[in-house]
Amino acid sequence: MQHDITSYAKSRHTVKAYNPDKTIPDEHIAKIKELLRYSASSTNAQPWHFVIASTPEGKEKIAKSTDRLYPFNRNSIINASHVVVFCSRLDIEEDYLLRVLEQEERDGRFGGNPEFKVQMHAGRSLFVNLHKHDFKDVQHWMDKQVYLNLGAFLLGVSTLGIDATPMEGIEITELDKQLGLREQGYTGLVVVPIGYHHTEDDYNAKLPKSRLPESDIITHI
Amino acid sequence: MQHDITSYAKSRHTVKAYNPDKTIPDEHIAKIKELLRYSASSTNAQPWHFVIASTPEGKEKIAKSTDRLYPFNRNSIINASHVVVFCSRLDIEEDYLLRVLEQEERDGRFGGNPEFKVQMHAGRSLFVNLHKHDFKDVQHWMDKQVYLNLGAFLLGVSTLGIDATPMEGIEITELDKQLGLREQGYTGLVVVPIGYHHTEDDYNAKLPKSRLPESDIITHI
Repeated sequence: MQHDITSYAKSRHTVKAYNPDKTIPDEHIAKIKELLRYSASSTNAQPWHFVIASTPEGKEKIAKSTDRLYPFNRNSIINASHVVVFCSRLDIEEDYLLRVLEQEERDGRFGGNPEFKVQMHAGRSLFVNLHKHDFKDVQHWMDKQVYLNLGAFLLGVSTLGIDATPMEGIEITELDKQLGLREQGYTGLVVVPIGYHHTEDDYNAKLPKSRLPESDIITHI
Repeated sequence: MQHDITSYAKSRHTVKAYNPDKTIPDEHIAKIKELLRYSASSTNAQPWHFVIASTPEGKEKIAKSTDRLYPFNRNSIINASHVVVFCSRLDIEEDYLLRVLEQEERDGRFGGNPEFKVQMHAGRSLFVNLHKHDFKDVQHWMDKQVYLNLGAFLLGVSTLGIDATPMEGIEITELDKQLGLREQGYTGLVVVPIGYHHTEDDYNAKLPKSRLPESDIITHI
């Protein structure tokens, strides 16, 4: 990276037109997958899945979820180099929690101490059950972790010189059907075309960013 | 930044013990505020507020929200250089939407074209009303934007050499009371102590990261 992180935060923008002739090189796709995989999540629950479309057929399936209500989003999906679908799990059941726990053990998180493994499972289950049974918002809680991943992703890819267009304007039912997500235990949340903006047509590249003043959003104590 | 963004994503970790004698310099606090302010959000709604505690009194108020249920979180709050409380708005009412719109106009987003201003307000209202009236999850939708900001923040501060400890383990009712958040139209979501880890005591700095395998979380189409 050449610049300070704030310069990326301030210069990145939501692309409105992609150059269909520019493709993200494989070594950057590999880095993008590492960004997705290494994101933080509450209790390391990682309640997510990602579909990465690089083929015209894959992008077309995703674009179908914009046709009825958000037709203005189709072109970005079709013309981008790749499209990343951020998905959430539909359930966070005991089997899955044990799978995460076993992975942590294999990766050396417990240093051979069985007590640490028990504590980790208890801590993660505490938060999952709080959201399942007390707050009854476990789907939203999982979705929030996916948004956390999305935030790191948008800033992260900008440092690689890659543009992005985060979209909530998709019909989830259609997206899930097109990609067969629910059968696999996932549901789509946000679609993010990535690539390189079209120098002439991307009007948003030329507009200044706008944010509320610092005094409105920050309190010091 | 000296390294590739993925090296930061892979090396950052949730700090379990801070060095109470190390303070984040002012120029980095200024950058941190820019990261918070310039985060993306759906339709640029920016439905957030941040409380930054740098005084012992401020940190003590925040720590009180851990005492009943999450006492293990107190020390990180007290010993960190600063503590950032990520808050969500409690409502996203017409007056607020117009305030964002006026700011965008002042910042030059509409280039003097009143039609663009009308379109922006209509687009943003479409999404807000979808979540208010159709999905009835507008609080969660706002919270998700705050988590997006949090994701960029965690990755962003790591590139400045600053450690962080994102915490959901806080009692929101107590936190909101201590900081007087609800009277101002906000509610706390996540507390993030930031600073520099204690070289000897931060056991998590020495443990390897663990993540599910790429083949589990990514599908290519």
